[in-house]
Amino acid sequence: MQAVGSCLCLGIDPDPQSLPRGMPADVRGVERFARLILEAALPYSAAVKLNLAFFEAWGSSGVAALERLRADVPADVPFIADAKRGDIPSTAARQAVALFDALGADAATANPYLGLDALLPLLERPDRFVYLVCRTSNAGAAEIQDMTVEGDQPGDGEPLHVRVARRAASWAAEHPRLGLVAGATAPSQLAAIRSAAPALPMLVPGLGAQGGVLQPVLEHGPAQAPPAADLPAGGLLVNVSRSIAAAALDTDEPGQEIAAAARDWSGRLRIPIGQVLG
Amino acid sequence: MQAVGSCLCLGIDPDPQSLPRGMPADVRGVERFARLILEAALPYSAAVKLNLAFFEAWGSSGVAALERLRADVPADVPFIADAKRGDIPSTAARQAVALFDALGADAATANPYLGLDALLPLLERPDRFVYLVCRTSNAGAAEIQDMTVEGDQPGDGEPLHVRVARRAASWAAEHPRLGLVAGATAPSQLAAIRSAAPALPMLVPGLGAQGGVLQPVLEHGPAQAPPAADLPAGGLLVNVSRSIAAAALDTDEPGQEIAAAARDWSGRLRIPIGQVLG
Repeated sequence: MQAVGSCLCLGIDPDPQSLPRGMPADVRGVERFARLILEAALPYSAAVKLNLAFFEAWGSSGVAALERLRADVPADVPFIADAKRGDIPSTAARQAVALFDALGADAATANPYLGLDALLPLLERPDRFVYLVCRTSNAGAAEIQDMTVEGDQPGDGEPLHVRVARRAASWAAEHPRLGLVAGATAPSQLAAIRSAAPALPMLVPGLGAQGGVLQPVLEHGPAQAPPAADLPAGGLLVNVSRSIAAAALDTDEPGQEIAAAARDWSGRLRIPIGQVLG
Repeated sequence: MQAVGSCLCLGIDPDPQSLPRGMPADVRGVERFARLILEAALPYSAAVKLNLAFFEAWGSSGVAALERLRADVPADVPFIADAKRGDIPSTAARQAVALFDALGADAATANPYLGLDALLPLLERPDRFVYLVCRTSNAGAAEIQDMTVEGDQPGDGEPLHVRVARRAASWAAEHPRLGLVAGATAPSQLAAIRSAAPALPMLVPGLGAQGGVLQPVLEHGPAQAPPAADLPAGGLLVNVSRSIAAAALDTDEPGQEIAAAARDWSGRLRIPIGQVLG
């Protein structure tokens, strides 16, 4: 973040139906487009997030492309594997190997439904990081995540995503390499998550193509308590994927257009966040 | 199930630290062991479940091994990809391609936390099937899954896993290719899930190495209402992984020992379930 002066996380989710002119709608085209996005947008990005499903859709050859792309990300740029993993501990241990060793990710996204013991194989890696899915950016996220869970006393009920954030904050006391995913499409829920977990770094998707609005993200995304509050942007990373990739369509200069879109988003997300707000 | 007279689902989760004598603790050893389990236990198994993380841990070469193993499963044996996937719809669409097209799975496991819209790309495939994780078999499953969620009226509260089961039952009215995962390690929760979703097929892990008990699974696992109640064993599949694989250790005849263990488990899970109970 300090190197680029921004909390932009570059998301790479290459869809074979949305490739620039001249790239084939197959795994080679997807890898070429992903590499073009990476090279053009990297100077403006604090971190890179690759969405594993977009490579796994091509089977082992897609995973091989993912591995080549990972090797192209410089060592000083955090690499996030967006995988939404989570399973019983014996399986989670192999997920940790897959994400952190085989792929060499610096961080990964995980699902909270199985509880802390299922996350421990990911959390216990001293040099890696886990973003726990708390409130997602999809239209139907409220169906489960906004259910009201009871508290210890009558009237203590609160939404499931707030309870998950509170639980994550308590887990982080012992396992500090933990942050939260909260979608920009649900600004009031994002604010409630920040209140429940004031010290956790946040990864925020859902801006741009998904319709999320920037202002509440800049207001509530940064951590309000140390240790994350002491990081640049309060540990906030804001992911932009499709709004940058889409700049490459219908143009003869896709690399230049991607760079321009990334520079624009990077500027909107420049740090310190306070100056943006001011 | 009818062909083998049992509701045994053969789980394959090959751990490089638990291979038979003479197999190397690498991706080749893991593939060899997985193929040995598959060949020895297949005559006694109604379905095969491969746990993707145990192959993804070896990167693209592990996924290539997974693809070869999938090709070795006969077309008339249901192949379940244990993946616990779930993401926003645009990503879930690529997860569906990865699981159902690239890997050719007949069914896959998925996580409910993101809601119905995130599951639709998986559920809308007319020739495939989705097992939704409802109550898992890990020791810490209760932490999130047993939280009490409020109902419409005071006093209508119920555990999250029961609410998820109820929600899944309502989703299944429009999207019938849906079942539930409920762990054998939590028999009372399994019974509550069956009550909340009497018509959904169930996949039950957690017997054997994880400590689950058979009797409550045979009692509450079979569906109690059509359409699943009309299937063999009421649509119940009981997964056994480590208790079969472990038979291959410390022996000079691992194939024979695996076959014996699978035959034993298949017998304990013979259909019709009623006769087993009688």
